[in-house]
Amino acid sequence: MASTRAAFHETATLIPVAQHLERVLAEVRADAGVRVDRVESVRLADAAGRVLATSVAAVVPSPPFDNSAMDGFAVRWADAASATPEAPVALRVVADHAAGSADAHHARPLGPGEAARIMTGAPVPAGADTVVPVERTDGGQPTSATPVVQVFSMPDRGRHIRRAGEDLRVGDLLLEAGRLLGPRQVAAAATAGHGTLEVVRRPRVSVVATGSELTEPGEALHPGRIPDSNSLLLASLVRETGCEVVEVVRMPDDESLLLAWLDEREPADAVVFTGGVSVGAYDVVRRVLADLGTVDFVRVAMQPGSPQAFGRLADGTPVFGLPGNPVAVAVSFEVFVRPALLALQGRSDVQRRRLRATVETGWDSPAGRLQVMPVAFVEPGEGAGVDGDAVRPATRGGTGSHLSGGLAAASGFAIVPEHVSRVEAGDVVEVLVTP
Amino acid sequence: MASTRAAFHETATLIPVAQHLERVLAEVRADAGVRVDRVESVRLADAAGRVLATSVAAVVPSPPFDNSAMDGFAVRWADAASATPEAPVALRVVADHAAGSADAHHARPLGPGEAARIMTGAPVPAGADTVVPVERTDGGQPTSATPVVQVFSMPDRGRHIRRAGEDLRVGDLLLEAGRLLGPRQVAAAATAGHGTLEVVRRPRVSVVATGSELTEPGEALHPGRIPDSNSLLLASLVRETGCEVVEVVRMPDDESLLLAWLDEREPADAVVFTGGVSVGAYDVVRRVLADLGTVDFVRVAMQPGSPQAFGRLADGTPVFGLPGNPVAVAVSFEVFVRPALLALQGRSDVQRRRLRATVETGWDSPAGRLQVMPVAFVEPGEGAGVDGDAVRPATRGGTGSHLSGGLAAASGFAIVPEHVSRVEAGDVVEVLVTP
Repeated sequence: MASTRAAFHETATLIPVAQHLERVLAEVRADAGVRVDRVESVRLADAAGRVLATSVAAVVPSPPFDNSAMDGFAVRWADAASATPEAPVALRVVADHAAGSADAHHARPLGPGEAARIMTGAPVPAGADTVVPVERTDGGQPTSATPVVQVFSMPDRGRHIRRAGEDLRVGDLLLEAGRLLGPRQVAAAATAGHGTLEVVRRPRVSVVATGSELTEPGEALHPGRIPDSNSLLLASLVRETGCEVVEVVRMPDDESLLLAWLDEREPADAVVFTGGVSVGAYDVVRRVLADLGTVDFVRVAMQPGSPQAFGRLADGTPVFGLPGNPVAVAVSFEVFVRPALLALQGRSDVQRRRLRATVETGWDSPAGRLQVMPVAFVEPGEGAGVDGDAVRPATRGGTGSHLSGGLAAASGFAIVPEHVSRVEAGDVVEVLVTP
Repeated sequence: MASTRAAFHETATLIPVAQHLERVLAEVRADAGVRVDRVESVRLADAAGRVLATSVAAVVPSPPFDNSAMDGFAVRWADAASATPEAPVALRVVADHAAGSADAHHARPLGPGEAARIMTGAPVPAGADTVVPVERTDGGQPTSATPVVQVFSMPDRGRHIRRAGEDLRVGDLLLEAGRLLGPRQVAAAATAGHGTLEVVRRPRVSVVATGSELTEPGEALHPGRIPDSNSLLLASLVRETGCEVVEVVRMPDDESLLLAWLDEREPADAVVFTGGVSVGAYDVVRRVLADLGTVDFVRVAMQPGSPQAFGRLADGTPVFGLPGNPVAVAVSFEVFVRPALLALQGRSDVQRRRLRATVETGWDSPAGRLQVMPVAFVEPGEGAGVDGDAVRPATRGGTGSHLSGGLAAASGFAIVPEHVSRVEAGDVVEVLVTP
C-alpha cells in the first residue's frame, strides 16, 4: 500500500494544464443542454447577471419613429434656408409636439412657412425635414394672432432628426446566446422590444470540504483543528460564477460519512470536493471516488494545485476533486472549475481577460510547471494604474499553498509559463484580474 | 422665458468632469456614516459582495500550530541525516498523526531513533524538527514487532513544516475597512479566526425615469412611445454597485405626479432621476427640483451626458438628475453615480482599473469635452487579448447618445481627453473595462 503510493508519486506523469482543462471542458460541454432542462424565461428586471440562452434580435426598430434630437422647431428646411441673425425668417408655429405625444402622427403635414415646436424625443411631423435647435431661434414669441418663431440660422438639411431604425432595424441581431447579461444588455433588449429573455437556468452546485481538522469558522479551535475556510471560499466562488449553491457540506475524513452523503445528496449539476484527493492514508475522497471507476486522479503540471480529480459520479454528475490547501483551492477553481461552470452555462467566454503588469518583487517558479501566483497590485491609487501597473506576490511566503491569509491581499493571479524558473523584478507577466 | 433658455445655453460654463465629480464625492462622503446607521454584522457565508466597515486583524494565528506540509514521517533530523538509498536509516514508527487529531499535542516528545507517521496538516509532535516525505522512504513497512520506516534520503533540517503564525500572527492586519469583500477575503477572515464581519449596510437607492413617451418594456408601442430602457439600466447598475434598489418609478412629464412622489417616496440614501433635466418646456425634473433651491443643474464638459443635476432633496437625501438618453445615462452613471454610491459605502477604491487598448476604427471627439465612448473589444477570443487588445466604437452611429442598441455590444468606455478632436485608428486609448 505505502510502496504503491510512493510509486505513484515517482512515476505519475504531469499532465499539461491546457490538456486537463480541455478534457474538463469537453466533458462539461457535452452536458450543457443535454442532461437538464436548462432554459427559463425571466423578466428584464431579473435578467442582469444571467446567461442568455437564445440569441435576441430586435422586434421593434430603434428609434421606433423619426424623432427630434433637440428641443426646438421642426421645419421645412427650404423655408428658412436664408435665415441669418440680421435677416431672420419668421415661421408660423402651428403645433407643439411633446415627447410621448401621438399628435404628430395624426397632424396634417407642415405646410409652407409653418413650424412645429418640438421637444427632444418627440415625433417629427410629416413635411418637416429638419429640426432647428431653440438656440438658433428667438424661442417662438407669441404674437397677437398666431405664434411665430424667428429663425436666426439654419443647421444643415436633415439635422437633429434621429431616423427610425438608425440604431436597430427589426431583425438586427442584438445579443448572441451564451453571453452574460449586464445592465447595458438588458437595457438594449428593452429598446429592441423585449420584455422577457430566455436565460440559462443557474447550474446547481454542491460543495464538500473534507478533513477531520476542519472547524466552523469563528468557533473555538481545539488542538489540531483549523477553521474551514475552503467551503466558504468555494461556495462564494461558485455563486460568483453564476451558479446556485445547493449544499455546503463539511465532513471529517470518514469513508462511511462520504458514502452516505453520496447516497443522500441533493440533485446537482456539478459537485466540487476539496481535500482528500492526494495519496495520504486518510484521503477518503480519493479512495471513495476512485472506486467508482469514473473519476480520474491526476497530477497536473501546475503550482500550486497539482493533484486534481475530475470525472463523473454514479448518476453522471460531473465532479471535481481539488486539493485541500486554500491557495491551491483558489487556483484550481480559477483554472479548471470556473471555466467549466461557465461552459456548463453555455458561456462563449470562459476565460478572463488578462493584462500585463510589471513585477515589483521577484519570486521563484518551478520549472516544468505552470505557476499561478496570487498577486497584489502595488499601490494602484485612484485613477492610476495604466502604465504603472505593478504586482508583487500576495502571500508573505510566496507560493506556499497553505497561506490563506495572504489570499486576502490578492487581486489576481500571475501566470508564469512552464519554462520559467525565476521571475525577476522588472519582468512583465500576464495577470488574470479577478473582481 | 424662451430667451432665458437660449441665454442659458449660450453662456453656461462647462464644468470640468473632475470638478463635478469632486463636488459629488465631497457631498456624499460627508454623508457616509453620518446620516444613517451604516454597519451590520453578517456571517461569513453572507459577506461576499459586501463592503467591510471595520478593519479586520487576525485573532488566531495561521497556521494555528506547527503542522506537516507533506504526507510522510516526522523525525529528529540528526537521527537520519546520513541516509542514502544504499545505506538507508531505519526509524521506529511510534505514532500515527492524522490531520484533525489532537494526539500529537498530548503525545510524549519523539525520542532518539523514533519517527511518527504524519499526514498533511497534522500537528508536528514535540521533538520532531523535520518531515521526511513518504517518497523518500519505503513508506513504513510493518515488521513483526514494531513498525519501522526506512529513510532513503533526508531533506534539509526543518523542511516540510509549516510554522505556527507564518501566514498570520495574532494582531496582523488582514483586511482594511472600505474594501469590497470577495471569496478570497472571506476565506482569509475565516482562517484568521472570524465567524462574522462588520459590513456596511447596503445603501438604499430609488430610481425614477421621467418621460411621457416611456412604455413598459415588451408592451405594445403606441405612436410616439418608446420602451423605457433607462429605469432597467439604472436599477441594474445600482444593484451591481452593491446598493439595494428600493423603488423603480416611471412617470410621465407631469409636475403634480413628481411632487406627489417626492412627498410619498420610500426613505432612501440616494435618488437617481433620468430625463427631464435639460431646458425643454416639459423638463419637469428640472423645474421641480430647481425650485427646491438645493439642486444644481449644470453642464459638464463631457460627451455624452453634459446636462447633470446634483444636490439634495428637502430632507437632505442626495439626488442625481441624469439626462434621458440611454448612452448618456450609462456614461453619467459610470462617471458620477457609481463613484458616489461606492463612496457612500466607504469604499476606498471608487474608480475602475483602466487598461490601454489600440483603436481599430477611429472616431471624432468634441474638443473641449472629455469624451466617454462606449467601446467593444475586437475579437478577444479565449485567452487572447494581452498585446492584441483593440477596441472600436460599440454604437453604430458613433457617439449618438440615443443609440441604446449599440450599448449591448459595449465592454467598456474609452476615455478621450478634452484636447483631442479626433481619435485615429492605431491610437492608444485608456479604457474603463466594465464587467
